[in-house]
Amino acid sequence: MSSSSSSTIRPTPLLKDELDIVIPTIRNLDFLEMWRPFFQPYHLIIVQDGDPSKIIKVPEGFDYELYNRNDINKILGPKSSCISFKDSACRCFGYMVSKKKYIFTIDDDCFVAKDPSGNDINALEQHIKNLLSPSTPFFFNTLYDPYREGADFVRGYPFSLREGVPTAVSHGLWLNIPDYDAPTQLVKPRERNTRFVDAVLTIPKGTLFPMCGMNLAFDRELIGPAMYFGLMGDGQPIGRYDDMWAGWCIKVICDHLGLGVKTGLPYIWHSKASNPFVNLKKEYKGIYWQEELIPFFQGATLPKECTTVQSCYKELSKQVKAKLGKIDDYFNKLADAMLTWIEAWDELNPSMQLANGIERLVV
Amino acid sequence: MSSSSSSTIRPTPLLKDELDIVIPTIRNLDFLEMWRPFFQPYHLIIVQDGDPSKIIKVPEGFDYELYNRNDINKILGPKSSCISFKDSACRCFGYMVSKKKYIFTIDDDCFVAKDPSGNDINALEQHIKNLLSPSTPFFFNTLYDPYREGADFVRGYPFSLREGVPTAVSHGLWLNIPDYDAPTQLVKPRERNTRFVDAVLTIPKGTLFPMCGMNLAFDRELIGPAMYFGLMGDGQPIGRYDDMWAGWCIKVICDHLGLGVKTGLPYIWHSKASNPFVNLKKEYKGIYWQEELIPFFQGATLPKECTTVQSCYKELSKQVKAKLGKIDDYFNKLADAMLTWIEAWDELNPSMQLANGIERLVV
Repeated sequence: MSSSSSSTIRPTPLLKDELDIVIPTIRNLDFLEMWRPFFQPYHLIIVQDGDPSKIIKVPEGFDYELYNRNDINKILGPKSSCISFKDSACRCFGYMVSKKKYIFTIDDDCFVAKDPSGNDINALEQHIKNLLSPSTPFFFNTLYDPYREGADFVRGYPFSLREGVPTAVSHGLWLNIPDYDAPTQLVKPRERNTRFVDAVLTIPKGTLFPMCGMNLAFDRELIGPAMYFGLMGDGQPIGRYDDMWAGWCIKVICDHLGLGVKTGLPYIWHSKASNPFVNLKKEYKGIYWQEELIPFFQGATLPKECTTVQSCYKELSKQVKAKLGKIDDYFNKLADAMLTWIEAWDELNPSMQLANGIERLVV
Repeated sequence: MSSSSSSTIRPTPLLKDELDIVIPTIRNLDFLEMWRPFFQPYHLIIVQDGDPSKIIKVPEGFDYELYNRNDINKILGPKSSCISFKDSACRCFGYMVSKKKYIFTIDDDCFVAKDPSGNDINALEQHIKNLLSPSTPFFFNTLYDPYREGADFVRGYPFSLREGVPTAVSHGLWLNIPDYDAPTQLVKPRERNTRFVDAVLTIPKGTLFPMCGMNLAFDRELIGPAMYFGLMGDGQPIGRYDDMWAGWCIKVICDHLGLGVKTGLPYIWHSKASNPFVNLKKEYKGIYWQEELIPFFQGATLPKECTTVQSCYKELSKQVKAKLGKIDDYFNKLADAMLTWIEAWDELNPSMQLANGIERLVV
């Protein structure tokens, strides 16, 4: 990972050798054709969900590795229990096996969107810009991202805060089909997102947000071990809360460690609404559980001894068990899976753990 | 003020008889010509700054009342000491003498901006929309204002929070000349804001922001007594922090009382950059003071006994004296002026004070 410093002097921050694109899927990846001009230089990690005997076709010319359930079981052994099956939550296995500094993950029903001038949006490039420029979580800048061309900090913004903090997460948005829950899908079946909001902003410290995994990038070295998408799908009482769970966890940890989370640009074109009836079945427990989860995460504080993502995440798992276990036994299992995930992460990323330790000692 | 309930059933929420436009000025108000189609139905309160013997010309056809320094002194007597002179901070006198529920305030170097389609932006109408729809300070919605046409709450947004809270403040933005401090003006003399961000968003609870008074609307009944623009200009060691001061105070109080603050649309066209050298002289103390003011406001908490804006504001004045007085004696004077302001407000708005008391008893 020695290339991180060189990336900052490159005029065009492509990060070709420092970023993996993670795609969870159950079908042939024809959607990549539209992304070819933007994705082809990068390495793909495809996490095949469902029947492992099915052959997933990847368009020619892409550089990729593919993992199906058998591969996951073989690589992780008994620890594979922490990786969800029959749910896009399985994508987080890709975060774990990557050896790169940055991850971009995208759903296979997401296409290239156009900006208001009709130009194709290079979503990946915008995510990279977001990740390579600082965040400003301590005070709101009314002209949004102060580091963008043509923008700056406005009058009244403390100068001591203008350096910002490192950005750990870049959350992109969706034109066409908005990311609604099942009840909203049912009530507003025809609603489409047509509003292009030309902004990137830091989600302030202390504020939680609903993180969607459809179009998401992050710095593995800064926050990777907390990007666990939980236990969803097959054998679990809940689905479609994988990214939400990860979003609440990473936000609490980013706030604690002084890291930034951005949302806004880039947009992708979300082509197809999922079935609201199926979604309702997956979501309904989450819809009432989240009423208790949000106050839990809003109130969660981490001791200052927790200086690595891993230690923060283990502490959070302990709090999940202590405070959410009484809602449903599912949260005890989830808390255990969080620990298994960290063990598996450290096993697959020994050098990162070491690097973290050294970095902390140096600081 | 009994018309607040009827306003919610009007199809077009013009609020013609419930809103005053407050304009601080030292010159003839030719700028109103451009605003005529939008402002003419409303009542204007003009606060004339500087030499009271100067005659300010107001274009024909506008309904207005005008106050110069002599009027302010006559109306407030010794309490007029809390109203700044030779600084646009004097505008808050207009908030105090208004008898309406809503205030829109705008600078006389602000013109009608155009949206990306080339249409004139009715800034006042957008402010009214912002004020009449709820805010969502407790959780961030990634598609911005969920109450706008074509938007909603996204997946993972707790249903218990979707009703929102009443909106007290609507902070609008500026195309062309951005609201930069003197150092940034000096470093980037040619920077112009050309980015139209089509969004309105709630500033989350616990997050401070730099509130600019150039293009601002608020609900007097909800937050008026906290909209004090401080001691600036003539005889004071500081200028250009009037709106910032008010913004930090109102945010702490809105957070405490469960009220919302929105920022974003509408844009106005800010025509002319003020002189950065003059600004630097006015600002320089503020630039280092704000490094202590921000932590002070970030840490300020109000006791739960404070259930009215007035009581919150008096408590804040006490904390200003206790904690900021040691930075400079100016803050002791400012704390006293905050109390004088509240006394003057209550004197001029006796029915509002009564209404507040009754409302609280009923709740």
